[in-house]
Amino acid sequence: MEMSEKLNFACDYAKGAHPAIMRQMMDTNMLKTTGYGFDKFSESAKNRIREACGCKDAVVEFLIGGTQTNAVMIDAFLKSYQGVIAAQTGHISTHEAGAIESGGHKVLTLPQQSGKLSIEDVEQYLEDYYQDENHEHMVMPGMIYLSQPTEYGTLYSRDELQAFRNICDKYDLSLYVDGARLAYALASPANDVTLRDLAKLCDVFYIGGTKCGALFGEAVVIPDPGKIPHLFTIIKQHGALLAKGRLLGIQFDELFRDDLYLRIGRPAITAAERIQKALQEKGYRLYFETPTNQIFCIMENRALERFGEKVEYGFWEKYDEDHTVIRLATDWGTTGEEITALIDAL
Amino acid sequence: MEMSEKLNFACDYAKGAHPAIMRQMMDTNMLKTTGYGFDKFSESAKNRIREACGCKDAVVEFLIGGTQTNAVMIDAFLKSYQGVIAAQTGHISTHEAGAIESGGHKVLTLPQQSGKLSIEDVEQYLEDYYQDENHEHMVMPGMIYLSQPTEYGTLYSRDELQAFRNICDKYDLSLYVDGARLAYALASPANDVTLRDLAKLCDVFYIGGTKCGALFGEAVVIPDPGKIPHLFTIIKQHGALLAKGRLLGIQFDELFRDDLYLRIGRPAITAAERIQKALQEKGYRLYFETPTNQIFCIMENRALERFGEKVEYGFWEKYDEDHTVIRLATDWGTTGEEITALIDAL
Amino acid sequence: MEMSEKLNFACDYAKGAHPAIMRQMMDTNMLKTTGYGFDKFSESAKNRIREACGCKDAVVEFLIGGTQTNAVMIDAFLKSYQGVIAAQTGHISTHEAGAIESGGHKVLTLPQQSGKLSIEDVEQYLEDYYQDENHEHMVMPGMIYLSQPTEYGTLYSRDELQAFRNICDKYDLSLYVDGARLAYALASPANDVTLRDLAKLCDVFYIGGTKCGALFGEAVVIPDPGKIPHLFTIIKQHGALLAKGRLLGIQFDELFRDDLYLRIGRPAITAAERIQKALQEKGYRLYFETPTNQIFCIMENRALERFGEKVEYGFWEKYDEDHTVIRLATDWGTTGEEITALIDAL
Amino acid sequence: MEMSEKLNFACDYAKGAHPAIMRQMMDTNMLKTTGYGFDKFSESAKNRIREACGCKDAVVEFLIGGTQTNAVMIDAFLKSYQGVIAAQTGHISTHEAGAIESGGHKVLTLPQQSGKLSIEDVEQYLEDYYQDENHEHMVMPGMIYLSQPTEYGTLYSRDELQAFRNICDKYDLSLYVDGARLAYALASPANDVTLRDLAKLCDVFYIGGTKCGALFGEAVVIPDPGKIPHLFTIIKQHGALLAKGRLLGIQFDELFRDDLYLRIGRPAITAAERIQKALQEKGYRLYFETPTNQIFCIMENRALERFGEKVEYGFWEKYDEDHTVIRLATDWGTTGEEITALIDAL
Repeated sequence: MEMSEKLNFACDYAKGAHPAIMRQMMDTNMLKTTGYGFDKFSESAKNRIREACGCKDAVVEFLIGGTQTNAVMIDAFLKSYQGVIAAQTGHISTHEAGAIESGGHKVLTLPQQSGKLSIEDVEQYLEDYYQDENHEHMVMPGMIYLSQPTEYGTLYSRDELQAFRNICDKYDLSLYVDGARLAYALASPANDVTLRDLAKLCDVFYIGGTKCGALFGEAVVIPDPGKIPHLFTIIKQHGALLAKGRLLGIQFDELFRDDLYLRIGRPAITAAERIQKALQEKGYRLYFETPTNQIFCIMENRALERFGEKVEYGFWEKYDEDHTVIRLATDWGTTGEEITALIDAL
Repeated sequence: MEMSEKLNFACDYAKGAHPAIMRQMMDTNMLKTTGYGFDKFSESAKNRIREACGCKDAVVEFLIGGTQTNAVMIDAFLKSYQGVIAAQTGHISTHEAGAIESGGHKVLTLPQQSGKLSIEDVEQYLEDYYQDENHEHMVMPGMIYLSQPTEYGTLYSRDELQAFRNICDKYDLSLYVDGARLAYALASPANDVTLRDLAKLCDVFYIGGTKCGALFGEAVVIPDPGKIPHLFTIIKQHGALLAKGRLLGIQFDELFRDDLYLRIGRPAITAAERIQKALQEKGYRLYFETPTNQIFCIMENRALERFGEKVEYGFWEKYDEDHTVIRLATDWGTTGEEITALIDAL
Repeated sequence: MEMSEKLNFACDYAKGAHPAIMRQMMDTNMLKTTGYGFDKFSESAKNRIREACGCKDAVVEFLIGGTQTNAVMIDAFLKSYQGVIAAQTGHISTHEAGAIESGGHKVLTLPQQSGKLSIEDVEQYLEDYYQDENHEHMVMPGMIYLSQPTEYGTLYSRDELQAFRNICDKYDLSLYVDGARLAYALASPANDVTLRDLAKLCDVFYIGGTKCGALFGEAVVIPDPGKIPHLFTIIKQHGALLAKGRLLGIQFDELFRDDLYLRIGRPAITAAERIQKALQEKGYRLYFETPTNQIFCIMENRALERFGEKVEYGFWEKYDEDHTVIRLATDWGTTGEEITALIDAL
Repeated sequence: MEMSEKLNFACDYAKGAHPAIMRQMMDTNMLKTTGYGFDKFSESAKNRIREACGCKDAVVEFLIGGTQTNAVMIDAFLKSYQGVIAAQTGHISTHEAGAIESGGHKVLTLPQQSGKLSIEDVEQYLEDYYQDENHEHMVMPGMIYLSQPTEYGTLYSRDELQAFRNICDKYDLSLYVDGARLAYALASPANDVTLRDLAKLCDVFYIGGTKCGALFGEAVVIPDPGKIPHLFTIIKQHGALLAKGRLLGIQFDELFRDDLYLRIGRPAITAAERIQKALQEKGYRLYFETPTNQIFCIMENRALERFGEKVEYGFWEKYDEDHTVIRLATDWGTTGEEITALIDAL
C-alpha cells in the first residue's frame, strides 16, 4: 500500500482505526446479528461504558459523527422554543453548517477565551435574560454546550464544570459536553475531569470515537435513563440510525476493553508536548499553549510556505499581514518517526 | 468466532461486508487521507460509478444509510412548499419515523399494488391537483419517489420508469429512485432496467450499499451536475457527512471494481428462487411471487411457531386469525448450506 | 357602498364582523392599551370564555386564523417524533399547504365517513401500531384531530367524543377539536356537545371566530393550565402573536357577552334548513344531509352553469361526467332576502 | 369610553387605526368579497403601492405582523443551507423568539453601531467567509437584513443602501429591508431614502402598517415578479394567510390613498423633536439622538421612579448602578396635549 508522501498533521481523523478494532471487525464480519444496535457487541459496549462512567442505569447510544450527535441530542433535549448557549468558537456555532438551526434551535453565542465559555458571561447572560421584561419574546436558554477539550485544545477543570452544573440547576438548563476529542482530555496530565465526573455533572455528553481511535462513531451517555423517552425513534427520524449497529458496538466494545480509551490518547499528548517544546526551542511563537493534541503556532508566511512543502497542516487564521496561525494535530497513532520528521521540517 | 445458533433469514443487513471490501479497509487502515470524501478512493469510486451509469459528469455523493439519504436528497430537491408522491408502502411513508416530515415535507401517499405505484393513479392525482381551484392551499407535488426493487421485492420495468419520467416532464416533477436493494434488481432475470437507464430517466437515484455487500453506505447519483448547488453543505447540515469519507469511497470502489455490483446480488436471487420453489413444493402459499431477494409466505400460525424455533424470519403482517405473512430475505452472501438448512426446516 | 351583484353562498367568511364587534372596535379605537394581549379586553374575553366552558383555570389564547392555530397548537402538544391522527378530509390533511409537516409532524390520515373519523378505525390503527414490532421506526401517534363540525358539516356526538377521549387515555394521546365553525355546531338542533363538554373531554380545542362573526380570530382553550408551559413564546416563535392583541380580545369579549356565541349561528342553521328543504322539493339531490351551515348538492352540469350566473357557490368535486358536487355555505348574517333569492335562482 | 389614566409613551402600537381606515372598515363590513386577498380592495391597494414604489410589476402581498413577515419572507428567499446577516440588535436577532431559526435558518449576527450594520463589517465578514477553506462546513450567507429605521430609530442613507446593494450583487445575496416603522423614516427630515429607492435597491422589503396607522398588517414588496414562485402557498403554509384578506387590502388602500402613508408619520416626528429638545433643555442626557419616532434617554433611577408614576415608558437597558436607559415612542396619532403633558411630567 502506498503512503501519503507528505507528513500529515492537518487533522486527527486522517487514519483508519486502532488495530484491535479492525481485527474484531474482520473476525466478526460474516456473523449475522440483529440490526439497529440490538446485538451483543453493542450491549457489551454499553455495559463497559456504563461501568467506566460509574452509572449502571445510564442510557448509552451510538451515533455516527459529531455534527449528527450534536444535532440529534440538542434537538432531543430542547423544547421547540429553547436555544443552546455556546462559545462563539463552539463547533455547533461555526462548523456544522447550521445543523442546530436546521432543527429549529438558535445557538446563543457568547464570547470565548481560548475556546472556553466563561462562567461569569453565562451567568450574566442568564440574569439579563430573566430580568428583561421582554424575555418571553426571546429565545429561552435551555442548555449549555461545552466541548472537552475545546476546539482550541483547552480544558475545563472539574471545578469549572461544577460551576456550570450549578448554573444549570439554578436556571433549569441541561448541561451537554461534546467530547469529540475526549480521549485527548483524559490522557492529558493537565486534566482533572474523569468520565465519572462527566456522568455526575452532565445531563448528556458524548465520548468521541471518530477522532479517538475508531473508524467512526460517538457514544452518547445520558446518566438519567428516564430523561428522553423514545430516543430510538428520535435517532431514526434524524436519519442517524445505523442499520448494522454492531459496527458501532464492536468499535466501542474494543475502545472500552481493559480501559483502552483512557490510554489511547497518550501518544498524541506525548507528541504534542514534544512538538510544542521543539517549536519554542526553534524560536517559533505559539498562539497559546494547549494541554491536549492540538498545537497552534504563529508562523511567518514565507517560512510557512517552505514548511507546507513538507508537511500538511491546518490553516487556522490570518494573524497579520506577514504571519499566519496554523494548527498541527497529533493523534492516537502518531509515531516517534513522524514527530522526528516534523521537528526536522521546522 | 461463535456463530448465531439459528438460521437467520430475517433481513438482508445482518452480516458485515464483502471480503474484498474488508481486505481493502485493512490494507489502507493506517494511511492518512484528506477527510470528507476528498480522497483518492472516493474519487476513484465516483469515476467507476459514473462510468457504470454512462454519465461522466454526474454528481456522485456517498451517504451512510437509506433513511438519511432519502431525507437529505428529498430535502435538497424539493422547494419548501412541495411534497413527494410515494406509495403507501414506500419506505419514506412508513418506516423512516417521519424523517421526511421532520424536514418539512409532506409525503403524498397513493395506493400500492404489490408495493408499486400505479402510473394511472399518479397521473390522476396530478390532474386532480391542478384542476382543484384550491390547489394553491394544498401541498404542491414536486417529486415522485419509487423504490427499485420495492419494499415488496417487485420491480418497475423500463417502460414503467419511462412513463413516470414522462409524467415528471409534464408536471415539472423530479423522479427519484430509492435503490436500497438495487443489486438485487440488477441481478434478477426479470429486470430490464440498467444503471444507464436509471441515469437517463431519473433526476436522482441511489445505489444501495448497506444491503448489497457494504458495511454501510449509499451512493447518490445526480446525472445533471448543475442541479443541486452546494450539496456538500446540505449534506453537512443534515449531519450526514462522514469525517473519514474514504470509508465510503473504499467500499464503493470495491463494489464497482470489475463490475462486482452487477454480480453481487446473484447468490441472493438464486437462493430466493430455490426457496420459493421449495415452499410451493411443500404446499406453502406465497403471499405473492417476487423476482428479487425477498420472499413473502403465508404460514399457519402453529407451523410458524415451530419454524420460528429454527429460523429467524421477518414478521410482515397478520393474514387472518390463523395465518401470518412472513418475510424471508436472502442476501449477497447466502450460502448453499443455509438454503438447504432452511428448506429442511420447512 | 356598492354591493356584490351576485348572490354569494361560496363560503362563510365573505363578510366582515357582527355589528357589536365593529361598534366596540370603533369606540375603543384611540384608546392606548398594552400590547400582545395584556389588555383588559383580552382579560375580560378570556374570563367570559372560561365561564362559558366551565373551567375557570383554563388557559385561553387568541390566535388569528385556523391554519395558524392548528399549526401552533399541534406543534405545542406533540413531541418532535409524534404525528397527529386525522381524517383524510381533515383540514390539516388537505387545505393547509403542509403547515403541519412544515412544523415537522406527520399527519397520520385515516379514511373518513361523511367527514368523520371512525372510532373503530382509530382504535384499530393504534392497536396495529403498538403490535408492529417495527413501530419504533414509525411515527408515533400523539394526538387525535377532530373538527366539530367537520369539513363536511357533520357532527360528532357527545358519546363519540367520549369514546375518542377513552382512546386517548388508553394510548396517551391528546384530543384536539378544531372548532373553526363551532358556532354552527352549537346552534344546530342535532348537536348535543356543549362548550363544557369540549372543555371536559379535550386537551385543547378552539372556538372559531373568523367564520362565526368575527373579522378574524380563534380562541384556543387548554383546560389544564399547566399543560403547555411558555405558550406565549411558542406563539411568538410561530409569528402568530398579534401586536395589538386587544383586537382579538375585543372581538371575543363581544362574542361571549351575554352568550352571543351560542346564538350567533342560528340564522345560518335556519337558512341551511330552508335551502336543503327547497333543494329537495325542487328535485335536486343532496350529496348528503348535514345538520349545520354547509349544504352539499349534486347538480347537473348545464343546470349548474345557469345557476352559476346568478350565485357564487363552492366547487366541491366532480361527481361524474355530467354532474358536480357543489357546496353552499350560509353564515351568521345570512338574511331572509338572500335565502329567498337563492331559492328563486334554483 | 374610559381612557387610560397614565400618559402612554411606551410603544407605537398602543392605539387602534387611523380614522380613515376605521371608517372604510365600517362602511364595507357587510359586503361579501372573495377571500384570501382576491378582492377589489386588495387589488386597489396593491396598485397604489406599486405606483408609490414606481414598479408596476412588483409582487405585493399583505401579511399580518412583523415577525411573521420576516419569518415568511426570509424563508421564501433563502435556500435551506443559507443564513441571513443581521445586526446584533436586529429584530430578527433578538425579539422574534427564534422564528427565523424555527424556519431552519441561522441569523448571522454582526456588531451594530446605533442599531446599524456597518458596510465594512459586512464586507469583511463575506470576504472572510469565502476565504475560509472550511466555508462549505459553515452556514452560507444568503441575505442581508436591515431595518429602516432601525430598532434604535436611526436611518440608513441612500448611499449606504446602495453600498449594501453592491455587496449583495458581488456576493449573490438578497437585500431585505424591514420597514416596520417605515412611515417614520419617510417623514423624517433626515431621511433621503424614498419608496422608489427601496424598490430599486432591495430584493424585498416591507411597508409597516401595524406601527404606522393600521390595526395590523405589513405590505411586502418584491420588485422582481418572477423571483419567488408560489408565494401564496408559502404564505399559507406559514399560517400567515388571512381568510378575510380584504381587511388588509382596505387598510393599505386607505394608507396609500392620496399618499397618506408619506405624511402619516409627521406628527410622530414633530413630537419626538419637541420631546428631545425639552429633555435636553431640562438637563436630561440622551443616550443618542435619533431622527425618527423613538427617543432614548438616560435617567437617574429615583427621577425615573417619579416619572414612571405619571408616564408609561419602555425600559431599554440598565446604564449603570444609578441610571437607566428608557425609550419613549411617539406615533402617528400623538397629540399636542400629550406632548405638553409629557414635558410637564419631566
